[in-house]
Amino acid sequence: MPSPKPRATESAPPAGFGAKILDMARQLARFSETPDGLTCTYLSPAHKAAAAQLRDWMQAAGLAARIDAVGNVVGRYPSAAPAAKTLIVGSHYDTVVNAGRFDGRLGILTALAVAEHLAGIGRPLPFHLDVIGFAEEEGVRFAAPYLGSNAIAGRFDVAVLQRSDKDGVKLGSLLQEQGVDRDAVKALARRPETLRGYLEVHIEQGPVLLDKDLPVGIVTAIAGSARFHISVRGTAGHAGTVPMALRHDAAAAAAEIVLAVERRCSETANLVGTVGQLAVPHGLINVIPGNCELSLDVRAGDNTVRDGAIAEIVAAAQDIAARRGVTVEISAIGSHPAVPCSAAIQAALAQAIARTGIAPFHLASGAGHDAAIFGGLTEVGMLFVRSGNGGVSHSPLESVTAEDADVAARILLDVLINLS
Amino acid sequence: MPSPKPRATESAPPAGFGAKILDMARQLARFSETPDGLTCTYLSPAHKAAAAQLRDWMQAAGLAARIDAVGNVVGRYPSAAPAAKTLIVGSHYDTVVNAGRFDGRLGILTALAVAEHLAGIGRPLPFHLDVIGFAEEEGVRFAAPYLGSNAIAGRFDVAVLQRSDKDGVKLGSLLQEQGVDRDAVKALARRPETLRGYLEVHIEQGPVLLDKDLPVGIVTAIAGSARFHISVRGTAGHAGTVPMALRHDAAAAAAEIVLAVERRCSETANLVGTVGQLAVPHGLINVIPGNCELSLDVRAGDNTVRDGAIAEIVAAAQDIAARRGVTVEISAIGSHPAVPCSAAIQAALAQAIARTGIAPFHLASGAGHDAAIFGGLTEVGMLFVRSGNGGVSHSPLESVTAEDADVAARILLDVLINLS
Repeated sequence: MPSPKPRATESAPPAGFGAKILDMARQLARFSETPDGLTCTYLSPAHKAAAAQLRDWMQAAGLAARIDAVGNVVGRYPSAAPAAKTLIVGSHYDTVVNAGRFDGRLGILTALAVAEHLAGIGRPLPFHLDVIGFAEEEGVRFAAPYLGSNAIAGRFDVAVLQRSDKDGVKLGSLLQEQGVDRDAVKALARRPETLRGYLEVHIEQGPVLLDKDLPVGIVTAIAGSARFHISVRGTAGHAGTVPMALRHDAAAAAAEIVLAVERRCSETANLVGTVGQLAVPHGLINVIPGNCELSLDVRAGDNTVRDGAIAEIVAAAQDIAARRGVTVEISAIGSHPAVPCSAAIQAALAQAIARTGIAPFHLASGAGHDAAIFGGLTEVGMLFVRSGNGGVSHSPLESVTAEDADVAARILLDVLINLS
Repeated sequence: MPSPKPRATESAPPAGFGAKILDMARQLARFSETPDGLTCTYLSPAHKAAAAQLRDWMQAAGLAARIDAVGNVVGRYPSAAPAAKTLIVGSHYDTVVNAGRFDGRLGILTALAVAEHLAGIGRPLPFHLDVIGFAEEEGVRFAAPYLGSNAIAGRFDVAVLQRSDKDGVKLGSLLQEQGVDRDAVKALARRPETLRGYLEVHIEQGPVLLDKDLPVGIVTAIAGSARFHISVRGTAGHAGTVPMALRHDAAAAAAEIVLAVERRCSETANLVGTVGQLAVPHGLINVIPGNCELSLDVRAGDNTVRDGAIAEIVAAAQDIAARRGVTVEISAIGSHPAVPCSAAIQAALAQAIARTGIAPFHLASGAGHDAAIFGGLTEVGMLFVRSGNGGVSHSPLESVTAEDADVAARILLDVLINLS
């Protein structure tokens, strides 16, 4: 038996949003640096071809579309009032190596399909709608993530122009060859007072919606992350001759720290902590580890929650070290604050979701997104779409169903129509 | 105030055992493959020079000494009764790379000093006393550990003749150049019925005696070891997008296993368990580990104790895996049974120790020794001598004091005189 149809909205489109979005994602994935799979990194031939395709689709959809100085594809469905503010609905079209076809692209294509529908029916909006495909979010080629959204948000750091790719090609030189200088990049910046808001549809890249059996979820915040390197030093010794009670085993101390991270981060919702790197350097089977190195990544939708957890983890690690007679050195290696999503946009999303007969569900985004770059400049909102295959992303196994893409498009349409 | 002198034994020697032993150890350490430090691997020029020095010292001490087919240095203080059995007192003179000067050698030199004293005073023994410096115990050059003692014990495996050193020199060829064939090696085997027993003095190579403030200890058994490789497979995932409750983190499971090993092995005396290798292969700071690899080394003076602990650790690892939704694969990579020391020799050592005014203390040997090779062939006994510097061994920091060496020699002398 088919699942019940969502309730029709004011401007219910024909049933084809989902199929159209998936078909475009499939076509866009053909532009790849690798013959098998999908790799589309910044300013590669595949990347430029993908940009041209997006621009062409936008133009065909009735938008005024162009590729900007850094490669962002910008398609406008203008408001009748020229002085209206602009709502950006965007995401990125660059990919990681051997990517899935939905990370980033789902958001552009959903916005494109919805904008095409609006243009087709001539539905006026009280704001300019800019559908933007950001040229660079993953940071694969130049380690300059969020390049596209940083340019539009006026947060472009000219220092990244000095970065080179693995072949030694400098980003600044590459842009200059295309006639783009730093002033042209800076000119892309939107003035905050011209913005109505920023909205992004994105594949969840995690298993939460799948686990909840929901096609979409409302993002409460883009989590802030903090990263650390932890070095544990104990006393190496002979695995046979040192009794357990006289050991100062660095790996055993590290194991306790791993479990302390897990325990503390499991206590609080929307908090995650990961030890992704763990190693006894040059470990030998018959030697008690004198050294163990580990990484720590802690993220939360709320900076206070994150920092409180980190403080407790640091204290726990120090207790473990003191009790075991080892030393623990914890070095911070970067952090980003959490970006909360606008309450008004969350509410608009919740109303639109409820109108489809689906229960509105809120979750934080543990991954970074272009949306975070607009935090503090304008109201930010995100709609997550269920990931298939256990939530896997950055992989060819990444999947979204046409049904879920359709639900997301209908919700976006509803929000655009009902957002004042 | 000086510490009280040990009570004089029947044939109390002048006070110079300890100083003499340390002086010989210092002299022997000059034969090294490396200009700095001590490295003396099997059949190197340094190794042959050390053998010649030992033979010369034995001859000077009044023993009938020779270097045998595989390089063992054998010095005999014969019994008056030609048909008497033989008590071997031995240890090895080869070393690890960048070694200390006492590992192995302390036992040879203590036996040599005591035999010299016996020969000097013409004290008859009811058995032939063979002081043996084994040519190869560490297995550095040909990965053929216990080569010397295996030859004497009749346990030489001719397959090791096919092994080559890092320069491609085959062990069999090297021996053949010296006119030694497999029959010559086999001829070194002592018949068990000719042996009275095997006794070995050895530096503890651990911190127990130091911790107990005792110069010597009686070995109850040479621990049996069992080694495993453990592979944990979970589910890799994005460090930001997978909530704690939905994770199957291979490193967190491995951390629990590390602590389960530590906890179980801490519950029982003379049992040790070590995870010396621990790694998330290709771990990334922002990826939940999908895989973690670790080693396990478990040793006990009693095989039942060891195997019981291993069974509980395996069961614990399987419980951890089931609870966390990961898999654990445990592969055995070798084991050696424990070799118990003779109760009669332990008693003789205890009486001799008590006669010096020191409390007899028993401990298992977690490291392997030549003594283990004689297990099952004849009565085996070992006397451990306190290691300085926290018990460090296989290091230039390895240390034994003249006082402790002196105590060990006096105890050995007492045992030789009083052993029937």
